Amino acid sequence: MASRKPVPPSELRQDIVSGDWVAIATARAKRPHAFVENKKPEFRQPKAVCPFEKLHPGALLAYDRDGSAASGDTWWVQVIPNKYPAFGTGECAVFHRAGPYQWTPGAGFHEVVVTRDHGRSIGAMNHEEARQIVRAYQERAAAMGKDPCVKFISIFHNHGRAAGASLSHPHSQMIALPVIPPDIARSLRGSAEYFRAHNVCVHCAMVSFERKAGIRIIYENDHCVVLAPYASKTAFEMRIFPKVHRARFEEAVAEEYSAFAGALRITLAKLSKGLSSPDYNFFIHTAPVASADTYSHYHWHLEIVPKTAIWAGFEIATGIEISTIAPESAATFLRNIRV
Amino acid sequence: MASRKPVPPSELRQDIVSGDWVAIATARAKRPHAFVENKKPEFRQPKAVCPFEKLHPGALLAYDRDGSAASGDTWWVQVIPNKYPAFGTGECAVFHRAGPYQWTPGAGFHEVVVTRDHGRSIGAMNHEEARQIVRAYQERAAAMGKDPCVKFISIFHNHGRAAGASLSHPHSQMIALPVIPPDIARSLRGSAEYFRAHNVCVHCAMVSFERKAGIRIIYENDHCVVLAPYASKTAFEMRIFPKVHRARFEEAVAEEYSAFAGALRITLAKLSKGLSSPDYNFFIHTAPVASADTYSHYHWHLEIVPKTAIWAGFEIATGIEISTIAPESAATFLRNIRV
Repeated sequence: MASRKPVPPSELRQDIVSGDWVAIATARAKRPHAFVENKKPEFRQPKAVCPFEKLHPGALLAYDRDGSAASGDTWWVQVIPNKYPAFGTGECAVFHRAGPYQWTPGAGFHEVVVTRDHGRSIGAMNHEEARQIVRAYQERAAAMGKDPCVKFISIFHNHGRAAGASLSHPHSQMIALPVIPPDIARSLRGSAEYFRAHNVCVHCAMVSFERKAGIRIIYENDHCVVLAPYASKTAFEMRIFPKVHRARFEEAVAEEYSAFAGALRITLAKLSKGLSSPDYNFFIHTAPVASADTYSHYHWHLEIVPKTAIWAGFEIATGIEISTIAPESAATFLRNIRV
Repeated sequence: MASRKPVPPSELRQDIVSGDWVAIATARAKRPHAFVENKKPEFRQPKAVCPFEKLHPGALLAYDRDGSAASGDTWWVQVIPNKYPAFGTGECAVFHRAGPYQWTPGAGFHEVVVTRDHGRSIGAMNHEEARQIVRAYQERAAAMGKDPCVKFISIFHNHGRAAGASLSHPHSQMIALPVIPPDIARSLRGSAEYFRAHNVCVHCAMVSFERKAGIRIIYENDHCVVLAPYASKTAFEMRIFPKVHRARFEEAVAEEYSAFAGALRITLAKLSKGLSSPDYNFFIHTAPVASADTYSHYHWHLEIVPKTAIWAGFEIATGIEISTIAPESAATFLRNIRV
């Protein structure tokens, strides 16, 4: 009997003009009428029925608060497969033609990083709790990166309904992709061009300039700098840069990712306290999975984007976002928030 | 006495890695605490106090329903300066250094195209009413394009609060910019590359393929084709392409823009009827202001993007959007909606 070919949960289609990829998630496709009905599940599920309350029998990883492997009710962080994955099993790096277009199956991984407390987000955690999350990100990214299909791993967090979270219980997501995403490809190109022209990493040059200038710095510890980018796309946008130049997040050693977890926790606490708990997204920008020197010009970092404005016609049409607060004012405000 | 240098309402800052531009609208900057207070003006203003109800004394253009110049209470469409412009008077094409970065004043224009009826959007208008709007877009774009500062003119429409409209009274906006926006630059590059490789306009090739395939066609008239793009970024995304190859919207002759207005009106009516009046954005993608042959490979068109999903962490991080309905299903659904 012939084995059934696995059906990937989506297909990646390439725009013929821009070269950008989009994912058409056919496996979780809604019928047109579902958009009309517009039924959304409850965002704030009672703790008793929240699907993230218990240690998942299929957890890919679970730690206790002290970092030891968890197996029972003392777990603090777990990584589980996404119940409705956008990417999964499928042909790897096979590009099909469809008339003038091309597509490739959405082969990859889609996992969820869950912490135990139903209502406590990263900004309200202690250092050790936050550190275990970052450690889980690293461990799963290293595991996904071993799959020959995986070209890029996106680690991101949606906080609040306006930021696209479907459940209020704090969780991050990790998606491994068979292509390099368009925004990452552009950053890599810009970073490579700067390196060729100046023989220095563009992020190192920027962090060095910003530390001297001071006006856009929000927080700093031994291994990380938090700043409001000069060309902030949204109000109160923040980036966390590790001081040590490393292309990939997974390369950060223990003391670096520990300091990074501290910077993340403190920055999110400042944001929540200063702006009355706005919704936000954060994500890690890191080099693709490749041999060590392919993207050595790149410098991994994390971006925090508060949901302070709607992306409207002008922004969608042009890619130019209009921010109504200067990054220098945002940085001064956030720097002075004590947490 | 020295004349005072005009202060532009914003500055355009360039991202050092991606090369993208963002606008920091300093003139309408909010204080940090204003984000906390989060006071939004009423979206649905009563007709009696709506600022778009009367013919504006400073209107740049006003037509009656029959297309004749309006001067009194019979006006149908008017174009007025935006009361809170994001772009305005300022030094033109002067690029300043700020450490490793560069910026340029937000020199340009920001205008609002208003139709008379407080609660009637384009999908509910008759052909002649819609045609006068498109004619107003064309006339103002031609006028803005004469300014040597202007590199690109963005024409867009936000419908509904979730789509970023600040007032419910139907209106479009036109913004003239001193730089070519990043998304437009990428489309131009892709279009030029395709032309070099195939000696045919990429949009003409796509429209020709889609008309033969049929599965993504939503509507067609003598001069326009409406389709769901193969690589749709969002659910129910639609594009209106003129059949005649022209780089710039302003080049469309009367019978072409009349058919275009008809296609726009009918497409928006289908969207509203089929999906229970969702919020949406639409915008025109057109070649930059330049000599006639510089961008002759480009093909102007209009994109309609319904607000059916939130742009969350993964989308912001990667630029890959996950759409939960196949464009083929969306097209079938919309094609069959009778309006």
